[in-house]
Amino acid sequence: MSAANPLPDPRSIIETKRDGRTLSSEQIDAFFAQLADGRAEPYHATALLMAVFLNGMRPAELEHWTRAMLHSGDVLSFAGLDKPVVDKHSTGGIGDKASLPLAPLLASVGLAVPMISGRGLGHTGGTLDKLEAITGFSTAVEPAAFRPALEDVGVVFAGQTERIAPADRTLYALRDVTGLVESIPLIASSILSKKLAEGLDALVLDVKFGSGAFLPEHERGAELARTMVTLAEGFGVRTSALRTNMDRPLGLAIGHTLEVAESVACLRGGGPADLRELVLALGAELVVATDLEPDLERATARLATALDDGSALERFVRVVERQGGDPRLIEDPSRLPAAPSIHVIEATAAGHLRFDDLRAVGATVAALGGGRRKVTDRIDLCVGLEFTVAEDARVEVGQPLCLVHHAGTGLDEARALLSRAFHVADRPRNAPLVVRD
Amino acid sequence: MSAANPLPDPRSIIETKRDGRTLSSEQIDAFFAQLADGRAEPYHATALLMAVFLNGMRPAELEHWTRAMLHSGDVLSFAGLDKPVVDKHSTGGIGDKASLPLAPLLASVGLAVPMISGRGLGHTGGTLDKLEAITGFSTAVEPAAFRPALEDVGVVFAGQTERIAPADRTLYALRDVTGLVESIPLIASSILSKKLAEGLDALVLDVKFGSGAFLPEHERGAELARTMVTLAEGFGVRTSALRTNMDRPLGLAIGHTLEVAESVACLRGGGPADLRELVLALGAELVVATDLEPDLERATARLATALDDGSALERFVRVVERQGGDPRLIEDPSRLPAAPSIHVIEATAAGHLRFDDLRAVGATVAALGGGRRKVTDRIDLCVGLEFTVAEDARVEVGQPLCLVHHAGTGLDEARALLSRAFHVADRPRNAPLVVRD
Repeated sequence: MSAANPLPDPRSIIETKRDGRTLSSEQIDAFFAQLADGRAEPYHATALLMAVFLNGMRPAELEHWTRAMLHSGDVLSFAGLDKPVVDKHSTGGIGDKASLPLAPLLASVGLAVPMISGRGLGHTGGTLDKLEAITGFSTAVEPAAFRPALEDVGVVFAGQTERIAPADRTLYALRDVTGLVESIPLIASSILSKKLAEGLDALVLDVKFGSGAFLPEHERGAELARTMVTLAEGFGVRTSALRTNMDRPLGLAIGHTLEVAESVACLRGGGPADLRELVLALGAELVVATDLEPDLERATARLATALDDGSALERFVRVVERQGGDPRLIEDPSRLPAAPSIHVIEATAAGHLRFDDLRAVGATVAALGGGRRKVTDRIDLCVGLEFTVAEDARVEVGQPLCLVHHAGTGLDEARALLSRAFHVADRPRNAPLVVRD
Repeated sequence: MSAANPLPDPRSIIETKRDGRTLSSEQIDAFFAQLADGRAEPYHATALLMAVFLNGMRPAELEHWTRAMLHSGDVLSFAGLDKPVVDKHSTGGIGDKASLPLAPLLASVGLAVPMISGRGLGHTGGTLDKLEAITGFSTAVEPAAFRPALEDVGVVFAGQTERIAPADRTLYALRDVTGLVESIPLIASSILSKKLAEGLDALVLDVKFGSGAFLPEHERGAELARTMVTLAEGFGVRTSALRTNMDRPLGLAIGHTLEVAESVACLRGGGPADLRELVLALGAELVVATDLEPDLERATARLATALDDGSALERFVRVVERQGGDPRLIEDPSRLPAAPSIHVIEATAAGHLRFDDLRAVGATVAALGGGRRKVTDRIDLCVGLEFTVAEDARVEVGQPLCLVHHAGTGLDEARALLSRAFHVADRPRNAPLVVRD
């Protein structure tokens, strides 16, 4: 019964997307203005979001939508800083601590990394929580403190503020309770409205595929990567994406404190091979994008040197110190707090370790008390899992496979979950870590 | 990130329909229970409704959805009444006053008609408003008063109560502001959840097509008709549907008081031919469905007799009296209140009257003060339009075509609207009034 309405009121905006048409810039601006001042209600927003979920968005429409979300809050600018400003975003996965070694590594070769991160939710841990496993470390950094930190140590690890992309916070909370998270345009605009607020020159995206990934299917992960690269480039940010394997954990450690220790090992030039490989691959993209090196090979070599000669670790110590953390825990990770008990899971067959269900691995850490259901939940930072070998490694019967660091609670549930998380297979899988599109 | 959830919480229900799957009975019951007690918020409802709008519903799913809406409130029962209980529903149109003559006509041949109606909104008038043009007529009838009225005069004209299908009222209000009205399963469930609450044995649906219809396209009207017939039959109500022409007004009068007068003319055996034809066609469906007559021909003849011999009019006088109206206005419609002025629109060419835009006709009455934008608006019941001839009639230059009954306001806007509402064409259109599917 509704006649065509020339004013972009919430209903006419919803009708446009309901009918599979393209939202105009005027409609998008009107929607976000109305969302901010209450003329658009949450029930308008979810109807529109469902229509976006089912009917998609065209590239120019998505760019304007993202721009409106970006400009719903503060946008940082580091004009005049004598270093290129870069960041990485990962779609999240089990054991993914790459941000911890990557940020100081990049700073050690002359880049600035204003890294605004979130907390863990569901089956994955969050960068902020991992950093807070370092006693004293504070991620409550005011925007005004970013520039001096970048000038001094080249890295800020900060939590999200209410002033960055508030429209995304409103929409994300609604998407979360209405089954509207897993939409490529909505994911891309949510991620980039926050990342673009960091005033970046270059960005690298780590889009996971596999059983522990946000979008497990290869094809949808590839589409998300393409969408985000095109979108971010439209904002003048040099952007590339790697799609990386989340059919197995990244590294051997899962759990906040355990992952800090593993990150420090990486920064010392050691640690698991896949973690080092991923940190170098992501970092090399940014080193090339900012013209510090002409190609990925030379960029990788330069970063590998910074891991191996101690300069990346030294930079991390300075970052930790600057943000109130205890640098002695980085210099000697055996001093990090530890869970009181370890339960050892041994191989019951000979063969090759193979992961089956990474969500079960993530759920194990949550069962032990190391995961959140709500953002306000308190978690035990010391519990977690430490695998003794990576996927595909040859194992013998009775060999310890996994050390369960626990505090007494949730151990039975953890063991049950782990029984379906991995098995010993006849053959190695030999899946690649990184796929470049 | 959401894992499969075995509990039918709002999110998992939305996800099912989002993904184009069929809602289970358990999910539908859970959704309406949660909607009633506040566990489901309006923003859950609109996300789900958009998914229904875009992904549709299967017949069994729609039946359960409608059942849940029906049982969200009181369901009347007239078990033991010695008359079959019937009703008509029209999707609404310009000048559609068929309910006024039809209900007493059906009562005069031995059927009971508990007719719960709405008020006019937008470009169409409402049955309740038209009845209230009869001085004193009250449509505030308590459910307990229905049975004695049906036993006595066989008709109740009542407004909706809060106790009939309250879930529909909640959902309709949300659909109205979010562009989610024009969905066939949502329309069908909304209409039938209210009609089925009347405890009917038989129902006839008048689904309009054409420029003044709710769903102008033939194909969608036919689909709505099929959907509603199948759905109502699933509830054990004998149901048929006629699709009828709304490319032109029904009858010659548009406007509340004017339509009462035209209805009385029909009940006297006179009035416009198309109004009589429609009233007989709809009535015959119900007379056959309730086995009062074996075929439509005999049913039509019986009803025509009741119009022509005064028994239908006599029944209307009794109904008006019983509901507090002044019966003298029915016996002598020239005593109905009238607008103070009449503006005459004359033909500017010779040829055949043809309507072009029925929404403009409806908007004309609204412009004169006879239409509502909000349900709380007060309207002038006396203003309206009276055509001197029906579509296709031969007219000469200077012949009066339309009498605009007005009270001084809105006349210029009305004239502008009417200039695009009809013209004088070379040839008659000869479109049929009724299409039987």
